[in-house]
Amino acid sequence: MDSALIVEEVQLTPILISDPPLLNTQGVHQPYTPRLVVEVVTRGGVTGLGETYGDGKYLDLARPLAGAMPGRPVTDVNGLFSLAERVCGDSRAVDGRVDAGGLRGAQTADKLRLSVVSAFEVACLDALGKTLGLPVHALLGGKVRDRVEYSAYLFYRWDAHPVGGEADDWGAALDPAGIVEQARRFDRTYGFRSFKLKGGVFPPEREVAAIRALAEEFPGRPLRLDPNGAWSVETSLAVARELKDVLEYLEDPASGTDAMAEIAARADVPLATNMCVTTFEEVPEAFARDSVRIVLCDHHYWGGLHRTRELAALCRTYGVGLSMHSNTHLGISLAAMTQVASTLPRLDHACDTHHPWQSEDVVTARPLFEDGRLAVSDAPGLGVELDRDRLAALHRRWVEDDGAMRDRDDAAAMRVADPGWRTPEVPRW
Amino acid sequence: MDSALIVEEVQLTPILISDPPLLNTQGVHQPYTPRLVVEVVTRGGVTGLGETYGDGKYLDLARPLAGAMPGRPVTDVNGLFSLAERVCGDSRAVDGRVDAGGLRGAQTADKLRLSVVSAFEVACLDALGKTLGLPVHALLGGKVRDRVEYSAYLFYRWDAHPVGGEADDWGAALDPAGIVEQARRFDRTYGFRSFKLKGGVFPPEREVAAIRALAEEFPGRPLRLDPNGAWSVETSLAVARELKDVLEYLEDPASGTDAMAEIAARADVPLATNMCVTTFEEVPEAFARDSVRIVLCDHHYWGGLHRTRELAALCRTYGVGLSMHSNTHLGISLAAMTQVASTLPRLDHACDTHHPWQSEDVVTARPLFEDGRLAVSDAPGLGVELDRDRLAALHRRWVEDDGAMRDRDDAAAMRVADPGWRTPEVPRW
Repeated sequence: MDSALIVEEVQLTPILISDPPLLNTQGVHQPYTPRLVVEVVTRGGVTGLGETYGDGKYLDLARPLAGAMPGRPVTDVNGLFSLAERVCGDSRAVDGRVDAGGLRGAQTADKLRLSVVSAFEVACLDALGKTLGLPVHALLGGKVRDRVEYSAYLFYRWDAHPVGGEADDWGAALDPAGIVEQARRFDRTYGFRSFKLKGGVFPPEREVAAIRALAEEFPGRPLRLDPNGAWSVETSLAVARELKDVLEYLEDPASGTDAMAEIAARADVPLATNMCVTTFEEVPEAFARDSVRIVLCDHHYWGGLHRTRELAALCRTYGVGLSMHSNTHLGISLAAMTQVASTLPRLDHACDTHHPWQSEDVVTARPLFEDGRLAVSDAPGLGVELDRDRLAALHRRWVEDDGAMRDRDDAAAMRVADPGWRTPEVPRW
Repeated sequence: MDSALIVEEVQLTPILISDPPLLNTQGVHQPYTPRLVVEVVTRGGVTGLGETYGDGKYLDLARPLAGAMPGRPVTDVNGLFSLAERVCGDSRAVDGRVDAGGLRGAQTADKLRLSVVSAFEVACLDALGKTLGLPVHALLGGKVRDRVEYSAYLFYRWDAHPVGGEADDWGAALDPAGIVEQARRFDRTYGFRSFKLKGGVFPPEREVAAIRALAEEFPGRPLRLDPNGAWSVETSLAVARELKDVLEYLEDPASGTDAMAEIAARADVPLATNMCVTTFEEVPEAFARDSVRIVLCDHHYWGGLHRTRELAALCRTYGVGLSMHSNTHLGISLAAMTQVASTLPRLDHACDTHHPWQSEDVVTARPLFEDGRLAVSDAPGLGVELDRDRLAALHRRWVEDDGAMRDRDDAAAMRVADPGWRTPEVPRW
């Protein structure tokens, strides 16, 4: 093995990035949300980039893994899983069914570890690609499309955080008219064809009205609604009946495979998930029970780009559709999402991305959405470059934080405005 | 994309290789069997090697695919499937349930095409690895083991072909003593720990006796019996009862998912298959019905090394074990098998290989089995070099053949000794 491909060191940089007051069923996004930037530096002097969740429980796992990386070749990404199992130990924070982000289904030590491994895998592939002069997609067997389609991610939101945070000019969106206005701007600015509304915020009839308003404004365009498991089976079925003529899919209307299977059996709308199928272990039961028609892949959840391709193969084999999930992320992950998406034979739905909501980034260039699509970079690696000044500034914000924002907690953020707020029990409606 | 990685031309060389008179339920191996060597030559002057079936129906598909390759980057292996669908058309020879090799389950145009694509994929990966100075396993995410274990592949056989062919010094093996003697030589020469007997040749009680003799000679060693679907459900169950204390697995005792599911439900021996699960389309039903506990992967069947890794992920996800199938093959495919096997996290069973039966090869070095294992090459690409003189000589044999051997037909070969032989109906016993 060429020594240029051996890992010299790994740098971990936790940061806090500005996040608008986007609402979901758990609460509201904090003014700042933690992310972790992983830099894998080779003996050849090349730096590969990865990005993942930045909460303390992820940092706890990332630090020992970073320490174990020097001396390993960046080509060895299959070996990261057993390495992480050996060195990471269990996170201190696997303490509940739902994680602090609140929206990614059951929390287990495995899922936390895979989310950390994913950033190391992406950074290794970026370093490998940069060293070889090949784009990451070529390291995954090559792209099968030149552009990857994304959807507009619509949120109910406040105009501004009640305390702190950066201002933006999107304004509040708390009713159908506000959502349509938001969608118009996404359409105008980025050309997105598909619209996804983050639901579970207001009583279902209000969210149904918003989808109806979108259908009227954008006839024939793919529409999605995602209440993050907040509804009962009966509520889900009622919404499905009301919106069956306009929804591309209904995402995680209720929590758990039992509820999803029952809804799937009785509803005329395809169900999608990034909550009831989030690990390979959850696949067999969910597929056997026809709980979902579409799985939203996410390389952070599933352990990287290779594993995402394996999930895609599973979905193809079982006739289950594939889409892509997003959590708050920066340009490194957007590049990784675009690279792997370009290699997946049957990616039949536009991918989700939060990126347009992120005003701050650690990469030098803003992504350029055209017709809702990103061109697949053929530049070496992921095709993005780190802005070290921005990284340092966002890390400084993390260092200077008193700890309040270092772990994302949408319910705590909501309590700033509504001191009586508690994470809702599900089903909420 | 570096122009050194662009395909300049593809050379196809059909050959006939010497094959001993190995018996199976369809008949006997011909004195010579067809293989196809694929050379992908890049503008950088690097040649990548691949190998697959060489019968006319495969050549018919390989030729248009070879013609469509120039100008494409060797990194683009994901795109080979749609390219092949576009340019290959249907083979002239998809005319029956069972192919000429006779032993790989239902024959479809898709399966033929995938077997051809696999050789192109392997050749592209070999060329890419050689160009970059990386072993193929590093292009698949890296090896997770340094050595790959193989099993001894025991065959009932004649001393020599009735007409023609090359002599060897193995002698006949037509009874338990002969099989044990053959196993001793495999053990002594190669150090194989596991033994697989190709069955379906004699009435089951004779084959049970052979396995019993092996168990006595090699106590505790993994033993397998594979009658290629020749038995009825009741016969399979009777054999399973008799051998349950000594068999690692029983491979394809009966034909079809129905029969396999019934046997699996009633037998105490794990069932393995390379006949009822040979494509992704066949996976869901077979897994849902618990028809098999172990799938034998084969990169020729499944469309290459990436697809083999996807199959492995499917098996892991569904708790199905993984082993590896072999058909008559040369050192190119053995290198490809070893490279991909080295990357598979849960390869719990020793891989099959016919290679020790092949006295002729197109690569310069014989593989070195130690303790039944091959070291995983870290040399660039597959780590094998073409012997052009041998290739030319074996191609000359193909050119000079009157057509009798260019399509493998084990039943026709059997009729040379037994003019009344017909391909047996299944179940044969």
